[in-house]
Amino acid sequence: MKHTEMAMLQERIYQILRKAGIVITPEERENIEIADCGFDDIENCGLQVVVYENNDRYCAKELIQLPRQLCPEHRHPWIDDMNIGKQETFRCRWGELYLYVEGEPTPDPKAQVPEKYREYLTVWKEVVLQPGEQYTLPVDTKHWFQAGKDGCVVSEFSSASTDEEDIFTDPRVRRIPKIEPD
Amino acid sequence: MKHTEMAMLQERIYQILRKAGIVITPEERENIEIADCGFDDIENCGLQVVVYENNDRYCAKELIQLPRQLCPEHRHPWIDDMNIGKQETFRCRWGELYLYVEGEPTPDPKAQVPEKYREYLTVWKEVVLQPGEQYTLPVDTKHWFQAGKDGCVVSEFSSASTDEEDIFTDPRVRRIPKIEPD
Repeated sequence: MKHTEMAMLQERIYQILRKAGIVITPEERENIEIADCGFDDIENCGLQVVVYENNDRYCAKELIQLPRQLCPEHRHPWIDDMNIGKQETFRCRWGELYLYVEGEPTPDPKAQVPEKYREYLTVWKEVVLQPGEQYTLPVDTKHWFQAGKDGCVVSEFSSASTDEEDIFTDPRVRRIPKIEPD
Repeated sequence: MKHTEMAMLQERIYQILRKAGIVITPEERENIEIADCGFDDIENCGLQVVVYENNDRYCAKELIQLPRQLCPEHRHPWIDDMNIGKQETFRCRWGELYLYVEGEPTPDPKAQVPEKYREYLTVWKEVVLQPGEQYTLPVDTKHWFQAGKDGCVVSEFSSASTDEEDIFTDPRVRRIPKIEPD
């Protein structure tokens, strides 16, 4: 992603946070993480994150999704006895989140996924989160999500976060963003 | 505290959350925790909590303080190697929080503390948190806080929370609320 494109996206994300009534500092605003997952198709696929705190015990972030934007399927693996995998809770603050987890597939799910991304989505048990609703994922289980038509803001509370260890079902995904000069 | 008094306070706390733009579920609204710390003087001293998640790895809560309400000084002790004490991050969402921690006392602090509670406040290094600002407390260190004139809403992100183990400087404090029938 080019630097100017990223700056424009950061501004859009900031405006979604404003609509949600969530205040961030000027420094956090400048550092909103934009991850296009390597697809260069941010309107359809990617995620945006403001990390409030991430230490060796707990982590808190705000996830901000554009309308209908997909976060690809992944899991937070059990590495060893010292790192038993990230456990996380999603709490919807604004908008609507369609979360998909392991279990009986939901007939007629609400997600609308472009063909390009569909084949690597293998879990289809739907959890719809409206503002104030939350869901805690078991460790090391597959999940993916998509925002509703207005986008969404979701607070993520978790154990320590190590994004670089996430395992994505789609081998094309590159989780750590690469920003290029203009 | 009497049951009807508690219900009225819960409604006030819910209205502060609404002003802050924070949505909670009807069940959370019914279960807002009101802790008067045993003083039966909730306007001046106590705390109100909505616990979103508390498991053996992490915890997330919303703390809601009435205008100028004091949360008495306490620490989260190191119990043993399995329980090394709660670490916590306060992030102000709405209103203003005056937080006091160990360190060089701040001259002319903003807190206004009734005489009754003053003698058991021993740390006076002031941290003022406006919306979007946060502070992470080291484990097992003393702290206390007071809301500004409008009250405040503060997100608390932390390791697992065990309120019953908190150690208050003031021996009169009873952290776990006792609700009486009307």
